[in-house]
Amino acid sequence: MTEYTINLPGSQMPDAWYNIAADFPSAVPPPLHPGTKEPLAPSDLGAIFPDNLIEQEMSTERWISIPGEVMDAYKLWRPTPLRRAYRLEKALDTPAKIFYKNESVSPSGSHKLNTAVPQAYYNKEAGVNTLTTETGAGQWGTALSIACSMFDMHCTVYMVKVSFEQKPYRRSLIQTFGAEIVPSPSDTTDFGKAYLAKHPDSPGALGIAISEAVEVAVKSGGAIRYSLGSVLNHVMLHQTIIGEEARLQMESIDEYPDVVIGCCGGGSNLAGLSFPYARDKFNGKDITLLAVEPSACPTLTRGVYGYDFGDTGELTPLLIQYTLGHDFIPPSIHSGGLRYHGVASQIAHMVHHGYMEARALQQTKVFEAGMLFARCEGIVPAPESCHAILGAVDEAKRCRESGEAKTILFNLSGHGHFDMSSYESYLSGKLTDYDLEESLIQEATKDILQYQG
Amino acid sequence: MTEYTINLPGSQMPDAWYNIAADFPSAVPPPLHPGTKEPLAPSDLGAIFPDNLIEQEMSTERWISIPGEVMDAYKLWRPTPLRRAYRLEKALDTPAKIFYKNESVSPSGSHKLNTAVPQAYYNKEAGVNTLTTETGAGQWGTALSIACSMFDMHCTVYMVKVSFEQKPYRRSLIQTFGAEIVPSPSDTTDFGKAYLAKHPDSPGALGIAISEAVEVAVKSGGAIRYSLGSVLNHVMLHQTIIGEEARLQMESIDEYPDVVIGCCGGGSNLAGLSFPYARDKFNGKDITLLAVEPSACPTLTRGVYGYDFGDTGELTPLLIQYTLGHDFIPPSIHSGGLRYHGVASQIAHMVHHGYMEARALQQTKVFEAGMLFARCEGIVPAPESCHAILGAVDEAKRCRESGEAKTILFNLSGHGHFDMSSYESYLSGKLTDYDLEESLIQEATKDILQYQG
Repeated sequence: MTEYTINLPGSQMPDAWYNIAADFPSAVPPPLHPGTKEPLAPSDLGAIFPDNLIEQEMSTERWISIPGEVMDAYKLWRPTPLRRAYRLEKALDTPAKIFYKNESVSPSGSHKLNTAVPQAYYNKEAGVNTLTTETGAGQWGTALSIACSMFDMHCTVYMVKVSFEQKPYRRSLIQTFGAEIVPSPSDTTDFGKAYLAKHPDSPGALGIAISEAVEVAVKSGGAIRYSLGSVLNHVMLHQTIIGEEARLQMESIDEYPDVVIGCCGGGSNLAGLSFPYARDKFNGKDITLLAVEPSACPTLTRGVYGYDFGDTGELTPLLIQYTLGHDFIPPSIHSGGLRYHGVASQIAHMVHHGYMEARALQQTKVFEAGMLFARCEGIVPAPESCHAILGAVDEAKRCRESGEAKTILFNLSGHGHFDMSSYESYLSGKLTDYDLEESLIQEATKDILQYQG
Repeated sequence: MTEYTINLPGSQMPDAWYNIAADFPSAVPPPLHPGTKEPLAPSDLGAIFPDNLIEQEMSTERWISIPGEVMDAYKLWRPTPLRRAYRLEKALDTPAKIFYKNESVSPSGSHKLNTAVPQAYYNKEAGVNTLTTETGAGQWGTALSIACSMFDMHCTVYMVKVSFEQKPYRRSLIQTFGAEIVPSPSDTTDFGKAYLAKHPDSPGALGIAISEAVEVAVKSGGAIRYSLGSVLNHVMLHQTIIGEEARLQMESIDEYPDVVIGCCGGGSNLAGLSFPYARDKFNGKDITLLAVEPSACPTLTRGVYGYDFGDTGELTPLLIQYTLGHDFIPPSIHSGGLRYHGVASQIAHMVHHGYMEARALQQTKVFEAGMLFARCEGIVPAPESCHAILGAVDEAKRCRESGEAKTILFNLSGHGHFDMSSYESYLSGKLTDYDLEESLIQEATKDILQYQG
């Protein structure tokens, strides 16, 4: 019998990230300048990001070496375990084999640290000593705080005010790693001050927090840079360490997945696990790559494919994506990390060209799957990760019906130790499911520049 | 360079627990009947525990086989990683090597599950389908809830009312695994009803919760049994899986510890790591075994060696131990798991006969060490575990002064994800240190039956 845990020795950890841009059968339509609508020049990003990260963002090199200091930091928690979910298989009475990559073991509790570490490193290399960012649910703020602490950098996290007030433990976790937290909107930025003048009692929103964090970077003259936890190409790139490890681990037990599943908000954990398998798919391999998203924010399944802003404030370049419109405010579901109006261009490209499938799921069923997983596997999953779990459970149930012994691999992107209030809502029967009206989506996306590529 | 993480393959996990009772140079003075003051007969425990566990409690067999179903359950998270704390060593600029056994990876977040699983298993084997227990901070209630869920058993956790109200996330975690939680004092037991009649607004206490849980077991006529998370011999026994794994892991990299450190409340995580090394010490090996406890509850360093009750309500047998008196209420420090008036007989025996040293530490320094560890190693430790960390840090600093390259091994017994309010207190400068007055201890221990064995 295969062991429950398939560990990869630290000495065998992959030393390069996989850049899917090298292998796309057709190129991803480029980001556009929000003013000119012309393709973006690297220098257009120079006010926010350092040159080395901009170079990665634009690169089409297939393999990008992981610097020694990043490797060293990764080894604090990587390679992460691959696990065979024997108890879950048994509970489902399925002939399918279920594997999951356990990213919850990271110091930040999720995959986010995989990109926070290199982003901190490259900024430090470029002479930057302070990073700013925003955080909503808190996963990303935690990760960047830890990464900055590793490289002796200062970190300022603009935390959506309502989260700052409602999540004191997440706040303490971020502070434990030394970051400064500013509840947003704040009086530390012009944007924040102006916003507060109009809305003194605002609970804040991710869009406002982004604007504050970006403003601090732009106005610093280069001393301070901004860092983003998803959506961009270099973030997807850094996350491929997940899938590269998984490939080696699956190979070590002579397994190869028929289905690879990840939950999708901005898309980074999904990209991290699935892109290393996508290159086989481009070469004709029969493998299903599946994105799972919440029905309350069905970007990939019901959004429009076109150019849209990444943020509410229309500060970012226009990115090709599936979008519900950058003004769209999804219902308050418990998967904060999946409440994003758009998606990474590379993920959108995969779906648009049929290399990846997408499915939307209701949160009650999602938490039900998370509870089953917790009881079988002993890990309380993050609400986001519960979507991937339900994707895997549904697939395993189909196998039970059909008798197929498929090999399923999903990404357990994080644990839910700081999301227990969501479980409390589930346990007390307070979760609501959402089916968005078609007219609502049409209204929210009516101004999107649709793309026929 | 040794890897950061020394994993043991699941196939090499030890398949027997080590029973230190077989190797003690002198026997531990036996528990006494609270009424007769005569040595306890096995049948005296029959109203609370099943026979198979009572047999283990009394056993002097050196090795006790771990049943296959327990092995199978252990493999959900065991073997746990042994880690070399390279970043902590660097931060301390010490020639010492620091290793830690990472028990925080368990589904319950601590070592407690190591005994919860076999306790559930043996009860199930004995035909018991329901276990009751008490929980204060919540670690033990979580562990037993998970263990019962693994064996399809019902679990009722009497949770100290103030914890029930102040720790909703811990509560949700326990409920996620299916246990029923009753805030104690409750109206579900005679003891609880009587107590509430006198103290309707009582915030509860561990002693009360124990009495309720025990009452339910005693009155059930055998259908329901009680389960305890520390102190007893069979609990120490089950925890030795920690040290047996550590031995194999250290051997695999040709290392052997000069110092083995654990924090000590009831003593189970300390026993788990150190007892497998004690047998070498009994044979003359030069190795230091160190218990670290809080200055606010200095059982081993300032308590009296003698016979005392395990609980406040005087329901348990009299156990040989170091004790501050069973009426002693320690100050409200943040390490709930170390606020125990007594200690396991086997640990007391080790200290009394000079096989183990003990040290008491103040909580401000303890949290400072925990913060350093978190920033270096990426794991936020439980407040209890921070004591072991400070023990290791102090030892490593002494090595820096003396130039000795000692090998230090400590037990990271749990993570602090559900203790972030304690970190918040530390970060906001609200922690208090305590030096107990000698007269207070003398008063609390004046009725203890001292023992000159």
